[in-house]
Amino acid sequence: MKVGVILSGCGFKDGAEIHESVLTLLALDRAGAEILCFAPDVDQAKVVNHLTGEDADESRNVLVESARIARGEIADVKTADASALDALILPGGFGAAMNLCDFAMKGPDADVNEDVAALVRAVHAAQKPIGAICIAPALIARVLGKDGGPTLTIGTDAGTAGAIEACGAGHQDCAVEDFVVDREQRIVTTPAYMLGPTIKHVAEGIERCVAEVLELASPAGVA
Amino acid sequence: MKVGVILSGCGFKDGAEIHESVLTLLALDRAGAEILCFAPDVDQAKVVNHLTGEDADESRNVLVESARIARGEIADVKTADASALDALILPGGFGAAMNLCDFAMKGPDADVNEDVAALVRAVHAAQKPIGAICIAPALIARVLGKDGGPTLTIGTDAGTAGAIEACGAGHQDCAVEDFVVDREQRIVTTPAYMLGPTIKHVAEGIERCVAEVLELASPAGVA
Repeated sequence: MKVGVILSGCGFKDGAEIHESVLTLLALDRAGAEILCFAPDVDQAKVVNHLTGEDADESRNVLVESARIARGEIADVKTADASALDALILPGGFGAAMNLCDFAMKGPDADVNEDVAALVRAVHAAQKPIGAICIAPALIARVLGKDGGPTLTIGTDAGTAGAIEACGAGHQDCAVEDFVVDREQRIVTTPAYMLGPTIKHVAEGIERCVAEVLELASPAGVA
Repeated sequence: MKVGVILSGCGFKDGAEIHESVLTLLALDRAGAEILCFAPDVDQAKVVNHLTGEDADESRNVLVESARIARGEIADVKTADASALDALILPGGFGAAMNLCDFAMKGPDADVNEDVAALVRAVHAAQKPIGAICIAPALIARVLGKDGGPTLTIGTDAGTAGAIEACGAGHQDCAVEDFVVDREQRIVTTPAYMLGPTIKHVAEGIERCVAEVLELASPAGVA
């Protein structure tokens, strides 16, 4: 089983949420999946000092920073081959909503990085499952939303849920330890740090989300 | 149970090993421990591009970058109060051997950041346990090594093991899923990414290392 993981930097305020990313890699490795990490080779929307929470006058590259989480084992998402993957997972963090797309700034009018959107569309068109964590379901909603778009969760935040529905996806409230699965469309989502409160709660939801993605990706999981 | 965790940046080539750090936080949270993250407020020894492995012409601060892993919940190690802690854990990564001390450059002649050394000495003097992961045992060897210094592991690398013994500590080979405990001196170590190969193996060793630290920190664990 080969699973692509799209990272969006390294740090929840301007990149991929580190805990969510590592917990995803751990769950995949423990399940015996081969992991292929990807990120877009673009500048971050911004750099945030995670100690003070203030914007920093710096520029960092999403692929280069994502490589910190992937320990160097990562490729430009432009090179990803959907036909070589059995599933795709997107951890959260503001990077998913600022670097992979600009949902954090433009909500339902968000533009999505073309290479990321193309990979999501290709994996989905091949009827392979996609997992999305924390705020990453907003990107999925923007790419796959339409009449009868997938049902997703970002937890319980009404404003964000409304923006996801405005993209043409359905939203279902969900607890942090749980996940929402749209079996027909093969989309699995979990709130993670959209709800928190701590890493053990987030870990439980991600473990269950990853297990469900792998279940849907296995031959027995085909609807 | 309050456990201090000393981070050394964010990324294994120039800071704290991210997987090891997150796995430590997860194991502590799951055990019900209260986590207090610390890092020194100093510049990193260098910044490495984790995509190419080459040095980058940049400067980053150890405390600020560590805050990415700690989600902002971190303090200058200078402010750490050993009497408020029940145990201390140091994840690895080159940051432990380049930012917390300069063992990577000077081996057994390494200088250790004064605030980090003071905290390690104070926790040890209070007979509270210390866990050290990956290359971090080298720092413990340098601070606590002497005739009859603690027995540690960094895995199986003979050169590094020799440098640790030259500090006055004992070295014992160890598999990645296992740990070495010096019960008398309350030092628990595990090789993690000194051996790898993947996150699931590292996770097993860290979970067992953290459990042993907490066992030694509990009243029943007092020798």
